Amino acid sequence: MALVLLSGGLDSSTTLAVAFDEGFEEVDALTFTYGQKHEREVQAAQAVASALGVGQHRVVQLDLAQIGGSALTDRAMEVPLGRRLEDISEGIPATYVPARNTIFLSYALGWSEVLGSNCIYIGANAIDYSGYADCRPEFYEAFQQVARLGTKRGVEGHPVEIRYPLISLSKADIVRKAVELGVPLELTWSCYLGGRKACGLCDACQLRLKGFREAGVEDPLPYERYPDWYV
Amino acid sequence: MALVLLSGGLDSSTTLAVAFDEGFEEVDALTFTYGQKHEREVQAAQAVASALGVGQHRVVQLDLAQIGGSALTDRAMEVPLGRRLEDISEGIPATYVPARNTIFLSYALGWSEVLGSNCIYIGANAIDYSGYADCRPEFYEAFQQVARLGTKRGVEGHPVEIRYPLISLSKADIVRKAVELGVPLELTWSCYLGGRKACGLCDACQLRLKGFREAGVEDPLPYERYPDWYV
Repeated sequence: MALVLLSGGLDSSTTLAVAFDEGFEEVDALTFTYGQKHEREVQAAQAVASALGVGQHRVVQLDLAQIGGSALTDRAMEVPLGRRLEDISEGIPATYVPARNTIFLSYALGWSEVLGSNCIYIGANAIDYSGYADCRPEFYEAFQQVARLGTKRGVEGHPVEIRYPLISLSKADIVRKAVELGVPLELTWSCYLGGRKACGLCDACQLRLKGFREAGVEDPLPYERYPDWYV
Repeated sequence: MALVLLSGGLDSSTTLAVAFDEGFEEVDALTFTYGQKHEREVQAAQAVASALGVGQHRVVQLDLAQIGGSALTDRAMEVPLGRRLEDISEGIPATYVPARNTIFLSYALGWSEVLGSNCIYIGANAIDYSGYADCRPEFYEAFQQVARLGTKRGVEGHPVEIRYPLISLSKADIVRKAVELGVPLELTWSCYLGGRKACGLCDACQLRLKGFREAGVEDPLPYERYPDWYV
């Protein structure tokens, strides 16, 4: 049994498909609503979970807005739009949510212990998100130690294993893998805004479009508009 | 600046006093409501925070009942009452909340980054709670690595420091320290149940009473009844 952190975006949906592909017959999924400005991606997570045949899928509400400090949770901060691709992969962006992946993994650790899951999958990716500290492999190795030392099953000698299969893939690699594994790309949602169509200008839309273009695959999602470099 | 995880019990209230005693002028506090069967301890946390002069105090709601697996969050499970002292310190009790301290620390990690805190204090204690995996020093050393590798300030070379000053103290030592540092013991609350008086029979009440007795200090809290060994 495996447990997958599923946001409903391209990366986590592909990770879910990888978990099935790596031989797990029962795969459960965990999604968070955390005071994002929109719930569109939660609907995407539900659609993807259902399409791929997840066992249990839980949506947990987390109050990360109390922590603040991010354009994704703080209504006083703006999501940056139309940034240049070179700038997107430099520094820590305004959309960084402090300790978000640590919080998500901690929850997954608790639930995996109750479920008896052997693996936790997370779709973190270090290539196109170099600005996020918690997307690097060293971070996951450290969290693996926390899982080993901080849980009942870890103490008993069989800790849950943390897997992050996308960590060294480019966005284009991820698109290719998604296609190969039959991920329903039309159901996924990556845009930071919650419109009817993807905005095409936030960092997430631009990285996604870049990945599709480099993979030579057409993104089935409708976009409000496309960045200048794309046209 | 320091940030203290404050449940309102004897241990975390004493830890708060230690943070002031170790020289921090501004100390903030973070309390969780996590689907416990009662909110009595949150009121205690507010009273203690106010009495000791905390800067900001936030109460964050966490949905740990979704995870389940603990008598503290699952209404279908009973809090064990009247266990023998020898049994309390053996094995992992029904009140164990899977990955609770990891989840609490992760949140604190996020908030400390926004606040600019230099230290996170947690009142974990390995002596009288040997059954909780996440109360051992190795676990905190592992979490320190997560803080170093998974945050912006860690990557920049000055990670928040995790301090757990009670880790090797007995309950009697903690009572003595609380008295020495002027902790308002009458405002703290340790009982797992939420009555008007402490129940006197749950594991938390019994360990607390044992600590007070061994320290030769009278517990100012009113108890519904006392365990047989106490009378």
